[in-house]
Amino acid sequence: MAEGYKYEYFNVTFPAEYVAHVEINRPEKLNAFVEQMWLNLSTIVKRLSHDSNIRAIILTGSGDRAFTAGLDVTAASQGTLSQNSSDSARTATALRRHIFEFQDCITALEKCEKPVIAALHGISYGLALDLSLACDIRLCAADTRFSVKEVDIGLAADIGTLSRLPKAVGNFSWVKDVCLSARIFGSAEAEKVGLVSGVYGGKAEVVSEGLKLASLIASKSPVAVQGTKEILNYSRDRSVEEGLRYTAVWNQAMLQTQDVKDAMLSGLQKKTPKFSKL
Amino acid sequence: MAEGYKYEYFNVTFPAEYVAHVEINRPEKLNAFVEQMWLNLSTIVKRLSHDSNIRAIILTGSGDRAFTAGLDVTAASQGTLSQNSSDSARTATALRRHIFEFQDCITALEKCEKPVIAALHGISYGLALDLSLACDIRLCAADTRFSVKEVDIGLAADIGTLSRLPKAVGNFSWVKDVCLSARIFGSAEAEKVGLVSGVYGGKAEVVSEGLKLASLIASKSPVAVQGTKEILNYSRDRSVEEGLRYTAVWNQAMLQTQDVKDAMLSGLQKKTPKFSKL
Amino acid sequence: MAEGYKYEYFNVTFPAEYVAHVEINRPEKLNAFVEQMWLNLSTIVKRLSHDSNIRAIILTGSGDRAFTAGLDVTAASQGTLSQNSSDSARTATALRRHIFEFQDCITALEKCEKPVIAALHGISYGLALDLSLACDIRLCAADTRFSVKEVDIGLAADIGTLSRLPKAVGNFSWVKDVCLSARIFGSAEAEKVGLVSGVYGGKAEVVSEGLKLASLIASKSPVAVQGTKEILNYSRDRSVEEGLRYTAVWNQAMLQTQDVKDAMLSGLQKKTPKFSKL
Amino acid sequence: MAEGYKYEYFNVTFPAEYVAHVEINRPEKLNAFVEQMWLNLSTIVKRLSHDSNIRAIILTGSGDRAFTAGLDVTAASQGTLSQNSSDSARTATALRRHIFEFQDCITALEKCEKPVIAALHGISYGLALDLSLACDIRLCAADTRFSVKEVDIGLAADIGTLSRLPKAVGNFSWVKDVCLSARIFGSAEAEKVGLVSGVYGGKAEVVSEGLKLASLIASKSPVAVQGTKEILNYSRDRSVEEGLRYTAVWNQAMLQTQDVKDAMLSGLQKKTPKFSKL
Amino acid sequence: MAEGYKYEYFNVTFPAEYVAHVEINRPEKLNAFVEQMWLNLSTIVKRLSHDSNIRAIILTGSGDRAFTAGLDVTAASQGTLSQNSSDSARTATALRRHIFEFQDCITALEKCEKPVIAALHGISYGLALDLSLACDIRLCAADTRFSVKEVDIGLAADIGTLSRLPKAVGNFSWVKDVCLSARIFGSAEAEKVGLVSGVYGGKAEVVSEGLKLASLIASKSPVAVQGTKEILNYSRDRSVEEGLRYTAVWNQAMLQTQDVKDAMLSGLQKKTPKFSKL
Amino acid sequence: MAEGYKYEYFNVTFPAEYVAHVEINRPEKLNAFVEQMWLNLSTIVKRLSHDSNIRAIILTGSGDRAFTAGLDVTAASQGTLSQNSSDSARTATALRRHIFEFQDCITALEKCEKPVIAALHGISYGLALDLSLACDIRLCAADTRFSVKEVDIGLAADIGTLSRLPKAVGNFSWVKDVCLSARIFGSAEAEKVGLVSGVYGGKAEVVSEGLKLASLIASKSPVAVQGTKEILNYSRDRSVEEGLRYTAVWNQAMLQTQDVKDAMLSGLQKKTPKFSKL
Repeated sequence: MAEGYKYEYFNVTFPAEYVAHVEINRPEKLNAFVEQMWLNLSTIVKRLSHDSNIRAIILTGSGDRAFTAGLDVTAASQGTLSQNSSDSARTATALRRHIFEFQDCITALEKCEKPVIAALHGISYGLALDLSLACDIRLCAADTRFSVKEVDIGLAADIGTLSRLPKAVGNFSWVKDVCLSARIFGSAEAEKVGLVSGVYGGKAEVVSEGLKLASLIASKSPVAVQGTKEILNYSRDRSVEEGLRYTAVWNQAMLQTQDVKDAMLSGLQKKTPKFSKL
Repeated sequence: MAEGYKYEYFNVTFPAEYVAHVEINRPEKLNAFVEQMWLNLSTIVKRLSHDSNIRAIILTGSGDRAFTAGLDVTAASQGTLSQNSSDSARTATALRRHIFEFQDCITALEKCEKPVIAALHGISYGLALDLSLACDIRLCAADTRFSVKEVDIGLAADIGTLSRLPKAVGNFSWVKDVCLSARIFGSAEAEKVGLVSGVYGGKAEVVSEGLKLASLIASKSPVAVQGTKEILNYSRDRSVEEGLRYTAVWNQAMLQTQDVKDAMLSGLQKKTPKFSKL
Repeated sequence: MAEGYKYEYFNVTFPAEYVAHVEINRPEKLNAFVEQMWLNLSTIVKRLSHDSNIRAIILTGSGDRAFTAGLDVTAASQGTLSQNSSDSARTATALRRHIFEFQDCITALEKCEKPVIAALHGISYGLALDLSLACDIRLCAADTRFSVKEVDIGLAADIGTLSRLPKAVGNFSWVKDVCLSARIFGSAEAEKVGLVSGVYGGKAEVVSEGLKLASLIASKSPVAVQGTKEILNYSRDRSVEEGLRYTAVWNQAMLQTQDVKDAMLSGLQKKTPKFSKL
Repeated sequence: MAEGYKYEYFNVTFPAEYVAHVEINRPEKLNAFVEQMWLNLSTIVKRLSHDSNIRAIILTGSGDRAFTAGLDVTAASQGTLSQNSSDSARTATALRRHIFEFQDCITALEKCEKPVIAALHGISYGLALDLSLACDIRLCAADTRFSVKEVDIGLAADIGTLSRLPKAVGNFSWVKDVCLSARIFGSAEAEKVGLVSGVYGGKAEVVSEGLKLASLIASKSPVAVQGTKEILNYSRDRSVEEGLRYTAVWNQAMLQTQDVKDAMLSGLQKKTPKFSKL
Repeated sequence: MAEGYKYEYFNVTFPAEYVAHVEINRPEKLNAFVEQMWLNLSTIVKRLSHDSNIRAIILTGSGDRAFTAGLDVTAASQGTLSQNSSDSARTATALRRHIFEFQDCITALEKCEKPVIAALHGISYGLALDLSLACDIRLCAADTRFSVKEVDIGLAADIGTLSRLPKAVGNFSWVKDVCLSARIFGSAEAEKVGLVSGVYGGKAEVVSEGLKLASLIASKSPVAVQGTKEILNYSRDRSVEEGLRYTAVWNQAMLQTQDVKDAMLSGLQKKTPKFSKL
Repeated sequence: MAEGYKYEYFNVTFPAEYVAHVEINRPEKLNAFVEQMWLNLSTIVKRLSHDSNIRAIILTGSGDRAFTAGLDVTAASQGTLSQNSSDSARTATALRRHIFEFQDCITALEKCEKPVIAALHGISYGLALDLSLACDIRLCAADTRFSVKEVDIGLAADIGTLSRLPKAVGNFSWVKDVCLSARIFGSAEAEKVGLVSGVYGGKAEVVSEGLKLASLIASKSPVAVQGTKEILNYSRDRSVEEGLRYTAVWNQAMLQTQDVKDAMLSGLQKKTPKFSKL
């Protein structure tokens, strides 16, 4: 099965039933991203989204030092950020298309029908935030160093952090602080403000915990799990009233599943239910 | 006065001036909900909403073991969840109507003009979250065990938890974690992420604290209190700009109340103001 | 330069490069606000917003006892709140116009293109919340006593607290609690729920830390900093999808700045970049 | 079947298969509305909404002279509009509750799962607009005289006209003109601006055409018809993108119906399909 | 009274009770706008908005040839449009501030609490559309020649036409046609698509009709008229449900007016009511 | 250049400078759509969107008889609509993915950066509406016969008509009429309600007029034209206030174009400007 998921900068493995492990694999550059990488990540995630063998995904960075150091600034400075037609409006058009494409690649994680768990460690700067905020669950190792780094390279972060972070945590003053100052903060601070939902000893431990959680989620009804992700993301962005209406219309189809009956029966019989592929 | 509020599964009492106490009363079944119960709860709450003798409400569960264990699954599996016409679209229509009705009953707590304080203890699964998230203030006993249980019965929670929880707490990663895993968590975790605003020793203590808080709120101007609830709920779901506009239009009527003058004067005179019924 | 910023109730100084310090200056009345004060504050802030010599602002209260005790209730009771034409609709119109004007003055802090840091200490009641919630970053001294005081004078807070607080912190139950009860709470509680992002020893210390942070932010590219503030505020109030689109359209112009190149080069050269005025 | 639908002020009949005819029946008062009438109308419409024997509804006014002259002003001036507690905020609360209840009764037409056709004639003032704008299709007799009458009794229309009219027609200047001037306009003008989709000779003719259209709609798949009404109303109020998403989620259930297969087969065989009850 | 309303480029007169006539007065330049003019217009309109002697406004252009030929392109090309710092981001900031200020001046017409009637004639290009679309009612002379002229000077119209036109008329294909082609169209076409609600012979006639309509509106209850304008504009931009809620909260204050009683009584007595100032 | 645009079911030609002509080419089946066709159309349109040689597009149907008869029902009944896993929730998931993909293909016309003109003739059923409503401008031949056909095959239209039609025309009663009855209507009715902005003699004439209009638009500044399309679509779906803000941020980049200077100068010199590629 792993055959189909071969990419230069990503290792995709299947460590447990219904679980995919996507590893960013450019450790010699601290997993810094060049354009090919976000295009590939998007391809991988879109495919996993419709792959009925997968029910949960974990995203990690290879090597000991970094989840990812963010954008490969050297590459970027020779690519998009250096582009300059003689007309500002035409340059703007090229830049806008580029940003939209880049955003869409990262948003693929949020749109993926299956939950994605980010397990961070070490250096986690810039794009590390954009990426992990588009994931569903964020766990980190104790040694993780985070930074919303973009103001330090002269720009407002434009791949998602500024739009998702205010809704991911519970301290808007802190959000402004770290986004405006670009200062580095650690795992304890990340946990305190609600950026992560678990801090674990080291990289090995956080990856292991992430896999455990992925396996647990993968053991549930995929109809229930995928509906839950969908409705939570929908509701985050809308009024409670809109959320309730969408939920009812979603479930008018989904409650007709056999999974409800199987799950209930298994509950009564204290057995582990098996659910059809989805 | 309690005469008018008699229901098989609810005890409604009036322990203090302007305060109503609504107790879920099916302790032998861990206060699990059958359809009659949410219909009754809605009736009670709608009536209290317009009852000028009431200014604050507390909601609790009878018995030592549970606020509520959630939906009575046995009853549900013989009722709605078992319904199946031969045509999926027609089944969908019946399910949608049912979900909307059920949602409306729980939303009655949010729409109630008077603040509702949920005081939770013991088992608080599934519907316990839907219910308490539609309340204004959540307090709990140290022994409370929470769970967003729905994925374990094969469905995405559809009575409100998935729409309200992301806006009630400050850790979206944690929200996804508990909603996707259905794991049980305790009062310390609930407090840490912001699900409750107070943890107290045992059931007796949390109910007592809830009553104290209800009495305090009931002693304030009902014009001020009810406007505050209305505007906070309105603003949660909209932009700050929309919230400000609605507030101004609301208060163009409400600032004309005598309560402002009475409250100010009482403040200066260090006396307790008395406010007319509303 | 300070020449242009002279006001009876405010001291405006420029303690560091690109940094303005705005001090509420009515200490003998615990910095309580009369109408002239919010009109002046708005004038000052709008001017700083377009003043290319300023890149970050700190807002403090003079004296040891209070950031501000809120609205000067005595003045208010003789002014707006006492107005009463013989016709409720006409009174409503006058009140609505007044509230809109007052709201606009406070919202000037949020609309200010440059980040504003509120450094609170001592008594911080009522308007202290409205004001600081319209700022970007909230720091406080350990002795700060907060209260959403408005229900105690018979009204729902209408200058912004009820619209901004639910989005600023991560515990909606707590928001309801403090807004409905008007109880006083301290710096530890403020930090725990996410209302402030830093607590410091005393007034001197918090002001000093605020200035340090303002200086740090002022040393960054103003294009990056002002874009970050804009997009964070925009995104707080809209869906992630809307936020991403706005960000891309914003940055199609802003990425064309020289600041990106200068910031990158300085990063590589470990030098401090200098950015043109904005 | 008509047995169950007996009301003093309404005649409910069933002139064709799956078609209900609701006639406002107070011709001696030009069908002017007293409170009992909107309460009854709401009850009737909510019941028809879930009555599987009904697939389309027509709403008309009895007598030759008027669809309805609107609110019974004499009754209103002794009822709600005369209420006046000594405190403006308390009067406001009573008025708000009253308006919400009244609005909800009229909105029942819009929320009714089955299409409602209004066939207007003669005097059609004030509430005639609120009512017919909450219906799906508006037809009128050539002699119809319309007026958004409310400013002439000193108030902004509050039962729906001002919210629905701007989205029902294609001339916002005209909307402002007729709402601000309260002038009477005829069927030709109503057709020109898009308020009605058909003008017919006299009352008999418009009612007959309305019934014909109701019968035509009632002959279609109720799954298709009710979905179409739902999605059109939903989309009117939201972005195209939101509309598309809701549509897909709606139809993921509804396309599973047998009606699609039956309708297609009937089309190929040039036969009239028969659809199960819904 | 006219004393207070003296401006170089505008004539403000008071031709009837409670009616103001604002005339654009630069006929030698076809009433083309320089910056001073939109600043002045905004000042005038904001003042009329709160002037209790005014209940309706008419806006016209002086001279026979033009309502307005739009932006004074020569002036603009030497002003804003020519500004060019060496840094695109800094130029962008200056341009954005300029556009916002310009938009706000035109939006003052929409925010004006009293209805504004635009009476157009002759050349009505570019800004003529922005201006009249921010008014409430559009009337025109038969000789009016309209054009959404902006693409012909190399830019997308940014002062309001592109945002208001799609909601003002009932043919989105036509909107795209005239905005993309910049072609000139006449009064018949404007009436057919719903851009104007009345076409009259010549300039004198349309101004006379506009005044007549202004006088009619000015004779109504100002509470009713101003509420109607407010709610129509609010509802245009939001869902019906949001519109209804806002309406109810607005009217909880406004129905308490004496105007309702006076209007009703006058209606019964066939007398003309007199309403207090607002 | 046409080399790159070869598809079995579409002819793509370049009849004038900067103009592309996309012809649906399955005349023997009345241009009815099979899945391959909407996938191809999407590919073509996305490529034209970024092709700097193109500034305007016209979409037509080959043959004399039909623009398109809509979905190829025979193919659909063997494809998606026939799919039926044994579990309703799993079938729902497959259907939802299919609908989203289909919608996205049609929405590509709306998202295309260049204006698209639909020139319709003959049979124009079902998908003909979905397609042309996603275009910017709709022209038709006098013989065009339209129908929102979907209820006749047992389903609510789900590819866009129900979401776009209410915002494209100015008669919501008529929208409901044609969507609920599926009746056929002609070009005169289409023009009257605002569905098309021009009716021409026959197919040859409407295609010729469409090309003329495309050429006219293609002669304008592409910065101005593409900005105008973008802002009109954005504003249709949002409040005027949101539209204005987006416009200002868009134009802070776009006003920096050389096109403004060139267009102004050409205007003064009565010459035809030439604009750089975009």
